[in-house]
Amino acid sequence: MSDSQSVDGIRAKLREIIFEAETPAGKAFDLVLLWFVLLSVGVAMLETVEAIDAKFHHQLEGIEWFFTIAFTIEYVLRLWLSKRPWKYATSFYGIVDMMSCIPAYLVFFIAGGESAFAVVRVLRLMRMFRILKMVHYVHGAEVIWHGLARSKEKIAVFFFAILLIATIAGTLMFYVESGVEGSRFTSIPMSIYYAIVSISTVGYGDMVAQTDLGRFITTILILTGYAVIAVPTGIVTSELIKGQETDKTTDACPSCGVHGHLADATYCRRCGAKL
Amino acid sequence: MSDSQSVDGIRAKLREIIFEAETPAGKAFDLVLLWFVLLSVGVAMLETVEAIDAKFHHQLEGIEWFFTIAFTIEYVLRLWLSKRPWKYATSFYGIVDMMSCIPAYLVFFIAGGESAFAVVRVLRLMRMFRILKMVHYVHGAEVIWHGLARSKEKIAVFFFAILLIATIAGTLMFYVESGVEGSRFTSIPMSIYYAIVSISTVGYGDMVAQTDLGRFITTILILTGYAVIAVPTGIVTSELIKGQETDKTTDACPSCGVHGHLADATYCRRCGAKL
Amino acid sequence: MSDSQSVDGIRAKLREIIFEAETPAGKAFDLVLLWFVLLSVGVAMLETVEAIDAKFHHQLEGIEWFFTIAFTIEYVLRLWLSKRPWKYATSFYGIVDMMSCIPAYLVFFIAGGESAFAVVRVLRLMRMFRILKMVHYVHGAEVIWHGLARSKEKIAVFFFAILLIATIAGTLMFYVESGVEGSRFTSIPMSIYYAIVSISTVGYGDMVAQTDLGRFITTILILTGYAVIAVPTGIVTSELIKGQETDKTTDACPSCGVHGHLADATYCRRCGAKL
Amino acid sequence: MSDSQSVDGIRAKLREIIFEAETPAGKAFDLVLLWFVLLSVGVAMLETVEAIDAKFHHQLEGIEWFFTIAFTIEYVLRLWLSKRPWKYATSFYGIVDMMSCIPAYLVFFIAGGESAFAVVRVLRLMRMFRILKMVHYVHGAEVIWHGLARSKEKIAVFFFAILLIATIAGTLMFYVESGVEGSRFTSIPMSIYYAIVSISTVGYGDMVAQTDLGRFITTILILTGYAVIAVPTGIVTSELIKGQETDKTTDACPSCGVHGHLADATYCRRCGAKL
Repeated sequence: MSDSQSVDGIRAKLREIIFEAETPAGKAFDLVLLWFVLLSVGVAMLETVEAIDAKFHHQLEGIEWFFTIAFTIEYVLRLWLSKRPWKYATSFYGIVDMMSCIPAYLVFFIAGGESAFAVVRVLRLMRMFRILKMVHYVHGAEVIWHGLARSKEKIAVFFFAILLIATIAGTLMFYVESGVEGSRFTSIPMSIYYAIVSISTVGYGDMVAQTDLGRFITTILILTGYAVIAVPTGIVTSELIKGQETDKTTDACPSCGVHGHLADATYCRRCGAKL
Repeated sequence: MSDSQSVDGIRAKLREIIFEAETPAGKAFDLVLLWFVLLSVGVAMLETVEAIDAKFHHQLEGIEWFFTIAFTIEYVLRLWLSKRPWKYATSFYGIVDMMSCIPAYLVFFIAGGESAFAVVRVLRLMRMFRILKMVHYVHGAEVIWHGLARSKEKIAVFFFAILLIATIAGTLMFYVESGVEGSRFTSIPMSIYYAIVSISTVGYGDMVAQTDLGRFITTILILTGYAVIAVPTGIVTSELIKGQETDKTTDACPSCGVHGHLADATYCRRCGAKL
Repeated sequence: MSDSQSVDGIRAKLREIIFEAETPAGKAFDLVLLWFVLLSVGVAMLETVEAIDAKFHHQLEGIEWFFTIAFTIEYVLRLWLSKRPWKYATSFYGIVDMMSCIPAYLVFFIAGGESAFAVVRVLRLMRMFRILKMVHYVHGAEVIWHGLARSKEKIAVFFFAILLIATIAGTLMFYVESGVEGSRFTSIPMSIYYAIVSISTVGYGDMVAQTDLGRFITTILILTGYAVIAVPTGIVTSELIKGQETDKTTDACPSCGVHGHLADATYCRRCGAKL
Repeated sequence: MSDSQSVDGIRAKLREIIFEAETPAGKAFDLVLLWFVLLSVGVAMLETVEAIDAKFHHQLEGIEWFFTIAFTIEYVLRLWLSKRPWKYATSFYGIVDMMSCIPAYLVFFIAGGESAFAVVRVLRLMRMFRILKMVHYVHGAEVIWHGLARSKEKIAVFFFAILLIATIAGTLMFYVESGVEGSRFTSIPMSIYYAIVSISTVGYGDMVAQTDLGRFITTILILTGYAVIAVPTGIVTSELIKGQETDKTTDACPSCGVHGHLADATYCRRCGAKL
């Protein structure tokens, strides 16, 4: 057995582990990766909490380097094992994989080990996107995604309507409220922000109407939003139900022509003929 | 070829560009117009942001005049090309088109170029309504609109219910809270504003209950609102699903012309003729 | 024609006007009454706005007395015209009608004309309930009402679940937050108020978590509420859709037994037999 | 009649009262227990309200001991009557029953009667969980529960999506807002808390964007949340409707036993036998 054959064997084995999701080894690898991603994102978050960073700065740095090296190894392996390395490297996930490990080294050599650079921290959080790769394992994600995709156009119309209402209401609020002392309605964009915060029922309360007319407009705006919020729900719900129905019903009966049989039907429910 | 014929040719050509939406020229014109409207609304908004206006006042003024002149030319062309100019001029969109360009000249000649007048700025924002003309291009807008239109009566009942609950709760809150020092429940209309802000789950927090009884009433109010918010959603959703079902049902009866048969119908439900 | 006969004629005529809603006179009476109720409620509200009351106190008082006398005349007429006056007087609407006019006189004679008594003002606002009598005119109110009535039990379960979650979360928040300086989580009922304000997505912001653990519990609570708010909507929507289906479909075909014909079907859509 | 026989008779009688829910005695016992649980939870809550505790401390303590003794008797009886006492004692409800009465005695003997221990108070509130045992009486709870259970996977996907969006938006907000003076965006976890409070439309207002860019990101976040909130509603609604449809379909096939035929089925969809 030649050397190159043994390398090929290792490559095939590794390829199975890293790229396949059905084999036990592949599943285990994906699970470990998922936990690595979650933990490294958690560590990157904790580093921004001052009280924790002051106490455990070195430990967090150490863990962070452990994950960075692990992801680097994984990235290099993927490049090596991939049949078309260039295609992988320039794909969305290839770039995410690269950006979530390589920049740390640049900072290390340039800034001398202190990964205080905000940019590196943001790049590290890009690791989250790697979880998206694993979403297709979860049964049910597809149903939701299709429901949203089918509702795409209607949701766009809905957003346009919201923005139009918010712009009109924001403009009105600006002219009504901007004259009041200490008013926070200092410009139309600020007032549109208020209108969107109101119509979506978030209502932070950092900006509030201070005149009676402003309060009246706000009330109208809220009630409009109340009717409008029903629309995206209705759209998505009706799309999901439509999706279900397509799941459930199959072709017409060849003998009597009745539609709408259950998905597992073998015989027509009307005439008893074989489907 | 007479002069009048050549003018007629130009009119026909322009009419195709301005009024028709199907031809390439018409589509391009509509797209340019859409961007002009969006940009001019954006500029009108930016003018109200003090920091930007201080720096770029003259540039914004210049852009604004560019759009005003463009919309004026378009308005004059529409008047000239229209077969019934008077009908166009007095229609909703005709008035919107006029109000969004003409007043700027009045202010210019009267106030000497400073378009500081609030009224002119509001009129300029009326240009937004011109976007409504283009909504019918968007597939899906109709479905939503029909859904809402069919739910009209039920939504009115729902609003009436909300207002009734808010009035009762507001009145109660006024008598419970108005005696507390520093209370903002100074009148029943103010308290109704609070009730609507609460029941719609906006909750700005500018007015809050300060007594135990007030908090108890607020809790009841919120929970009622929680059940009530389900209603408009249910209404719109069931209307959208109904709309879909009507969609699914097939052609008219060849014998009596009745529409809206169920998908599996073989015989007309009105006259019994074979479909 | 005897005197008693003429009185009977007047009674019959008045009865038609006051009790019947189908005749032109009855409709006009109901419309006038609706506006009287709305205006008198509006006046009672405006009286609580100090700035308005200071200026127009006497005018508002005058209008108020006009409505009080009008409602008194209507109440006396209803008593006189009713076939069973006692049953009317002790019915819900009878008591509402009485309470919204009689107490004003008591205050007038006891307190000497100054209707400053809060109790009288509340009673005056009871006139709002008279609008409920007219709701049955509005097509669509019934559909909503039936939808809610059919969902009654499920909505009760839902409220119980919300209260259970709010109680558990409130108790936890109390033990986590009550030790912090200046904390507003001073008791478990206060903390339950916070939990309900949070889970319903109202979020006034008068009480907020000040510890990291408190914020974590709040996040869990909000996400739970997010899933839970879907439930009443789902319940009401599915009931409304069920209601629609019942509306739409009638009996089975006598000849072939197919169900689910449209409400206006005369012939079976499957076999063409007369229904 | 021997002594042991008479004890057996008492045991059988008590078992009927305590374990069975169908007999009149069993129903009465359950109702008394429900009220005992609700009242004792209410008392435990009132004890945390300072104003009430200062006035009625001894009365509340007395009532509390009454309930503690009652629940102790019930717990001992359940242990004695149960056919497998150990299984009951180690079951979820067995532990709840025990924890809600036994610890009070420990505190009494150790701390000398002052049940000021926070831990005991929390344990007392565990009595609430006993209500869960009685939920199955309520018709409708099952429908909701099944709807939620069937949506389990999709709701998990939805929560994952919310957390992903909140993490991304929180990270962005942290880098945008953390530099502003007095900013409360002090760490990424804090910013994620803000993102979740915003996307869920709670909006306490304790943290608000102070920069224009921050407000812009918040607006995008809110509008995303607006589209996303439609998803769990759509999921639950479509599951509830599916549940209803399954409800509507009739009996099992007499020949092969398959359930869940459509309402208008005449022949079994599996074996073709006449229903």
